[in-house]
Amino acid sequence: MYQAAPNLSRTPSAYFDEEHSADVVNGRMGQDINPRLKQVMSVLVKHLHAAVKEIEPTHDEWFAAIRFLTETGQMCNEWRQEYILLSDILGVSMLVDAINHRRPSGATPNTILGPFYVENAPQYENGANICLDGKGEPLVVAGRVTDISGNPIPNAKLEVWQTNDDGFYDVQQKGIQPDSNLRGVFTSDAEGGYSFKSVKPRHYPIPSDGPVGKLLGAMGRHPNRAAHLHFIVTAPGYEPVITHIFTPDCPYLPGDAVFGVKSELIADFKKVDDIDAARAVGFEAPFWSVTWDFALAPTAKPQRTIA
Amino acid sequence: MYQAAPNLSRTPSAYFDEEHSADVVNGRMGQDINPRLKQVMSVLVKHLHAAVKEIEPTHDEWFAAIRFLTETGQMCNEWRQEYILLSDILGVSMLVDAINHRRPSGATPNTILGPFYVENAPQYENGANICLDGKGEPLVVAGRVTDISGNPIPNAKLEVWQTNDDGFYDVQQKGIQPDSNLRGVFTSDAEGGYSFKSVKPRHYPIPSDGPVGKLLGAMGRHPNRAAHLHFIVTAPGYEPVITHIFTPDCPYLPGDAVFGVKSELIADFKKVDDIDAARAVGFEAPFWSVTWDFALAPTAKPQRTIA
Repeated sequence: MYQAAPNLSRTPSAYFDEEHSADVVNGRMGQDINPRLKQVMSVLVKHLHAAVKEIEPTHDEWFAAIRFLTETGQMCNEWRQEYILLSDILGVSMLVDAINHRRPSGATPNTILGPFYVENAPQYENGANICLDGKGEPLVVAGRVTDISGNPIPNAKLEVWQTNDDGFYDVQQKGIQPDSNLRGVFTSDAEGGYSFKSVKPRHYPIPSDGPVGKLLGAMGRHPNRAAHLHFIVTAPGYEPVITHIFTPDCPYLPGDAVFGVKSELIADFKKVDDIDAARAVGFEAPFWSVTWDFALAPTAKPQRTIA
Repeated sequence: MYQAAPNLSRTPSAYFDEEHSADVVNGRMGQDINPRLKQVMSVLVKHLHAAVKEIEPTHDEWFAAIRFLTETGQMCNEWRQEYILLSDILGVSMLVDAINHRRPSGATPNTILGPFYVENAPQYENGANICLDGKGEPLVVAGRVTDISGNPIPNAKLEVWQTNDDGFYDVQQKGIQPDSNLRGVFTSDAEGGYSFKSVKPRHYPIPSDGPVGKLLGAMGRHPNRAAHLHFIVTAPGYEPVITHIFTPDCPYLPGDAVFGVKSELIADFKKVDDIDAARAVGFEAPFWSVTWDFALAPTAKPQRTIA
């Protein structure tokens, strides 16, 4: 039953050592595995080991990291995705978005999707008001959807969502806000035009009562997102645009907690104090008005994936 | 109420961009935070962004990573630490151990602690048998605890634990194995000597029914640990040694799933087929015998920590 060990087994180079640690780990991967997974894991292990060697964590620090990662997973539920939040505050979500949406000049840039998008929101005619709780400063949003040469795109689908004047999305306050408050789907007309009524958005904090919020605080950072409206604009033959428009007067523009602001997405929100203009849109004066056009790039080629 | 935005807010360089992503994120950290946390997070963000830029994940791949991290956290409970398992199979646990235990020549090297250590195991006299279930091939372990010059260390505490012959630790089979099966605490005598009886350890798989096991399989790797006994050896004035000794005939020595093998920790397990020798230790022939000495380095200086 007992067999002499092969010579290999006592050769130090067969085993893990500090200097070659990443190569030893990556050398264990099989030959016939998914090549994309092999590439992804090789790169992750290389950078992970490089980071550990640069940090030189104590055992207690390593265990604090284990606890943090565990608690972050255990904070997640149907309505809370703490790992996306972690990705957001470390700039990874925006980086992945940037890598996947390098657009031609003139196209509307993407920004972060965020966790509060809901499919199948109510469909409205252009001009409808998506504010169902009557709170906040009234706003008219109007503009056009075009290609990057400025040609109108009719029948584009515009999905919009935002917080109410208390800084919460409808799905964060079920039973408190009306269902689908400040959320709707519009369709561009023959000239690419769209319009709707809403309220001026406000800055709000990302959920900060979990492990990610504690980390943010320990790093000396605030949890606030700059005030914005979310949009997804889609049309057949064009790359979907997932984006925001930002108000220019928000104090959190340069400090947005998830790095979602791009200077090209800061809009001109104009305060209108004219009774006739207000009457024309069905508001009382004063109200806010913003004109915003979306320029869509042609559909890109499909990408490789292991997901 | 409306104020003109500061000029800064429309300057592109104030915002996130792909090229400077890590610097933008790290530039947000406060001035007055824990300097060690600042260093750790800077290094992590730098390497994380470098890895993302090298991988260029699609949105679906990014989301697969979010799901994996979430499920790994949600797999953890009182008896299962899936994030430690992840750290183990990626070689990070061994790397952290190596960084924290760079010992002088002649000292017994550390290896991974593993998840099955239990404090306050039963104390035994030297020579006692820790195998309480009667399974497996009998084994005698004996040797000395010394300093790195070979001087005996009396009253050193030796904690030992291992799997039973079915490949499970007692805490994995509560109610099936006797409590504290194959687990005990011994004390070195005036000459530094210790001895106990047990059974020859067997290889066994790490828990592979969770997300980490699925990843291991997708990477074309097996889940087996090379057969070993665990030890923690402590004595006042000396650096604690957390280590294993490995059997030389295990087929998983070079492929240990958590990279725990060091060539210096492979012991000579001798098969003894002599009736008198067997009678002397209270076994029937044949039985296994291994002699193993531990050499302890003087206590190192305390280390900085943020944990």
